[in-house]
Amino acid sequence: MVYAVVMAGGSGQRFWPKSRQEMPKQFLSLVGERTMLQRTVGRLKGFVNPDGIYIITAALYTGLVLQQVPEVPTENIITEPYGRDTAAAVGLAAITVAARDPEGVMIVLPADHFIADEERFRNVLKGAVAAAGEGEHLVTIGITPSRPETGFGYIARGRLHGTFAGIPAYIAEGFTEKPDLERARQYLASGNYFWNSGMFIWRADLIIRMIREYMPELYAGLQKIQAAMGSGQYRDVLNGVYSGLPKISIDYGVMEKATNVLVLPGSFGWDDVGSWTALEAYKVKDRQGNILEGKGVLVDTQNTLVFSSEKVVATLGVKDLIVVVGGDSVLVCHKKKAQEIKKVINALQEQGYQEIL
Amino acid sequence: MVYAVVMAGGSGQRFWPKSRQEMPKQFLSLVGERTMLQRTVGRLKGFVNPDGIYIITAALYTGLVLQQVPEVPTENIITEPYGRDTAAAVGLAAITVAARDPEGVMIVLPADHFIADEERFRNVLKGAVAAAGEGEHLVTIGITPSRPETGFGYIARGRLHGTFAGIPAYIAEGFTEKPDLERARQYLASGNYFWNSGMFIWRADLIIRMIREYMPELYAGLQKIQAAMGSGQYRDVLNGVYSGLPKISIDYGVMEKATNVLVLPGSFGWDDVGSWTALEAYKVKDRQGNILEGKGVLVDTQNTLVFSSEKVVATLGVKDLIVVVGGDSVLVCHKKKAQEIKKVINALQEQGYQEIL
Repeated sequence: MVYAVVMAGGSGQRFWPKSRQEMPKQFLSLVGERTMLQRTVGRLKGFVNPDGIYIITAALYTGLVLQQVPEVPTENIITEPYGRDTAAAVGLAAITVAARDPEGVMIVLPADHFIADEERFRNVLKGAVAAAGEGEHLVTIGITPSRPETGFGYIARGRLHGTFAGIPAYIAEGFTEKPDLERARQYLASGNYFWNSGMFIWRADLIIRMIREYMPELYAGLQKIQAAMGSGQYRDVLNGVYSGLPKISIDYGVMEKATNVLVLPGSFGWDDVGSWTALEAYKVKDRQGNILEGKGVLVDTQNTLVFSSEKVVATLGVKDLIVVVGGDSVLVCHKKKAQEIKKVINALQEQGYQEIL
Repeated sequence: MVYAVVMAGGSGQRFWPKSRQEMPKQFLSLVGERTMLQRTVGRLKGFVNPDGIYIITAALYTGLVLQQVPEVPTENIITEPYGRDTAAAVGLAAITVAARDPEGVMIVLPADHFIADEERFRNVLKGAVAAAGEGEHLVTIGITPSRPETGFGYIARGRLHGTFAGIPAYIAEGFTEKPDLERARQYLASGNYFWNSGMFIWRADLIIRMIREYMPELYAGLQKIQAAMGSGQYRDVLNGVYSGLPKISIDYGVMEKATNVLVLPGSFGWDDVGSWTALEAYKVKDRQGNILEGKGVLVDTQNTLVFSSEKVVATLGVKDLIVVVGGDSVLVCHKKKAQEIKKVINALQEQGYQEIL
């Protein structure tokens, strides 16, 4: 059977002040009316039954998950006691799925990415599930790059391994970190690189085996948790074990080391929506290139983004700004600094403004 | 006797969103803790008794006046039924003072200007009162210019008429409108020009005579109002007459035409505090030239002014901005546009945001 594991534990800061510690990006309606999580679950419709969808998240967010995707059964919400990056989360999800169906295929999806063409996405997913179903390969979807993006990791493709449901599957030759611009241009020009989408498809038993091979420490922890499953000690064991697990990503812990990785190219308008400026692609601009969501007037203003659900924002004589009013806070940021909002978070922390983070 | 008439009816928009239609600049604490009106009244201490201080304002603001300067007797608050610019206000104040003391000297002061050196101000005022007391001259205080300012009107000085309480009094040779930069530079270099401060000192009977001479229409209206003074019809007559009065300034209506004007030079740190950027002179800056009044963090930010009493403002990667959070509104304005906030007011009006103006 096919399962989905939606990773919804992230506590991103790049959409502060709209995102907060208790309301991270995946729970926000950044594009359209539905939240990123709702969109992620929604695009699995007809592909994975709701009772096959697992959401892995932090305890702080279980209320939000239940509220936003009530179709997912409560028992499918996997609560991490601490955030330990994606390797631990994937491992915990894998043993949970394996307890039900060891040979089940898990589709691992970040909860906070955008996909424009859901039909094409499901077609690629169909191929990926078929490829993963054989139980020999870790499968990932590589996004065909459309620009020399320096903000993403890349995957080099090797030879064609086969075709699944009409989708070619290539041997992945390597995962690379975020490149500099020159290298990103080379990657784009070569046609041999994909963006690392963070979407993985594999059989539960296979990823557990791979974790045993490449991350024995994590594997040992997962075995303890697995042994306690279904018992009254589960929560205590999970809490006790989890804090000691290595805090690394599944990319770094497994994917970069594994030799049995297939990558299927995807081209369906994928975007990780990593900053306020990323929203520009999805909003209507006025003639001066401004986006106004909420209440406001923009006078002598160019290429500026204003997001304000409560206060009326008036801009005068400015350009290339991001202005966001959220909760008790106002952000005024130059567009070219949209990736550096962490600096603001740090400054607010230092100055004792924890309550608005 | 000496009286003061504080003109507190203005509805300036240049400090939006902190100033509002129902809370204009003179009632705000822009510099220090006291409001501009409180400072204006306060600097008359020891010079004019509270019962000699009149405040002329709009009905909308009488509550604020009573609240902010309780030392001024209620009966000294002159309420204009409509704003008809300064000529009408001066005329109404003059007949009010004249009814009590026709030969009384009136000091007419805008309620929203800043004066750094109050001692020197009172010294000049002493000379002006002495000069005005003779009953022959309209007296004004001209500010010795310190820069080629294009935002003020200028007064040309003629020959020395005499010295009063140690202050030289010159024949005013003419009032000029706001000059362009080249002309302002010439004025500054010549040493023969003063800034028009809008502070006037004259005997009540003299200004009434001058109004009769240069503004017969206004004079006729004032006569009707005067005739109704002390009767039950006063308010009705005032309302009826006032709306028909010419809406022009006392500068334009009388001062520019009169030939008996004396100007006394003043140099006491005067400022009309005409925009958000004018406040820079009175606030402490950080090393990057920023001013933060209220709550906020300024990261990678230069020469930026932030005023926020409620929300926490975070700026990142910006410079030369004015950010103000006030009531239900947020202003983000380039400093070089600080004089054009009226454009924002107009845009807000057009788009139906009257409630926040």
